[in-house]
Amino acid sequence: MLKVTLIAVGAVKEPYWRDGAAEFEKRMKPFYKFEVVEVAAEPFGGSVTAEQSMRSEGERILKRVPDGAFVVALERTGKELGSIELAELLRNEGEGGAHLVFIIGGAAGLSPEVLARATRKISMSKMTFTHEMARVFLLEQLYRAATILAGKAYHL
Amino acid sequence: MLKVTLIAVGAVKEPYWRDGAAEFEKRMKPFYKFEVVEVAAEPFGGSVTAEQSMRSEGERILKRVPDGAFVVALERTGKELGSIELAELLRNEGEGGAHLVFIIGGAAGLSPEVLARATRKISMSKMTFTHEMARVFLLEQLYRAATILAGKAYHL
Repeated sequence: MLKVTLIAVGAVKEPYWRDGAAEFEKRMKPFYKFEVVEVAAEPFGGSVTAEQSMRSEGERILKRVPDGAFVVALERTGKELGSIELAELLRNEGEGGAHLVFIIGGAAGLSPEVLARATRKISMSKMTFTHEMARVFLLEQLYRAATILAGKAYHL
Repeated sequence: MLKVTLIAVGAVKEPYWRDGAAEFEKRMKPFYKFEVVEVAAEPFGGSVTAEQSMRSEGERILKRVPDGAFVVALERTGKELGSIELAELLRNEGEGGAHLVFIIGGAAGLSPEVLARATRKISMSKMTFTHEMARVFLLEQLYRAATILAGKAYHL
């Protein structure tokens, strides 16, 4: 069973995004050894700059990346993948036993150190999302990838 | 005030997507004269082919497109826009008084007749969504476009 972790910054607060996230986490259970790791957000404004926020969150993220993990960062300038390409990435990298770690940054984005640790940088859309929405979207796509790899029809 | 209509096929059933859609419809109220028009889905399988489903839904959609509307179809092979480009499209086309109509198809996609009626074909992602998810995503982006045009910070 593929081992997949999502590291994300901050909690999902809006109830509809939270419910959506919980639904797809639940649906993934039969397919992956899956875990969400939330690191604390460092809000900026006042005496904390966006740069400082990004660096602090980056340090928290890197502490939670296991040694040897295959790291995929979600980044606006990353390569846009289709759903089947994402499924292939999971299969190609995960089947040898690598632990796949996806990372979604906070409002200030991902630090250079986190991006340097990432083996792949991917983007889900040219459109801008909130990080809450990005999380629900990625969870849905990870579930979709599981159904693609299992050869199942995706029933909603 | 910009006049914007979304024509979509079928209802949003999953509670988390429904709650998300309702939230962004509500938030748009101060910015647009906005309406969602739902046309009935024609499920395929059994004696109804996907082609027939697409054609029936297409006829229902076209009946609801007002004369003279500027029509934007959401289509996998359409041009990917960023959030700012979507806002510019709304401003450029809507400020002269044109009624902007966005169309999201059902599970079988949009018919050639609907695509022929569309002035623009846009895509939100290379990834595949359910049509429910596409609807929430587009509503969020229409709200985001309104905040961009109004020069507001987007607080979630």
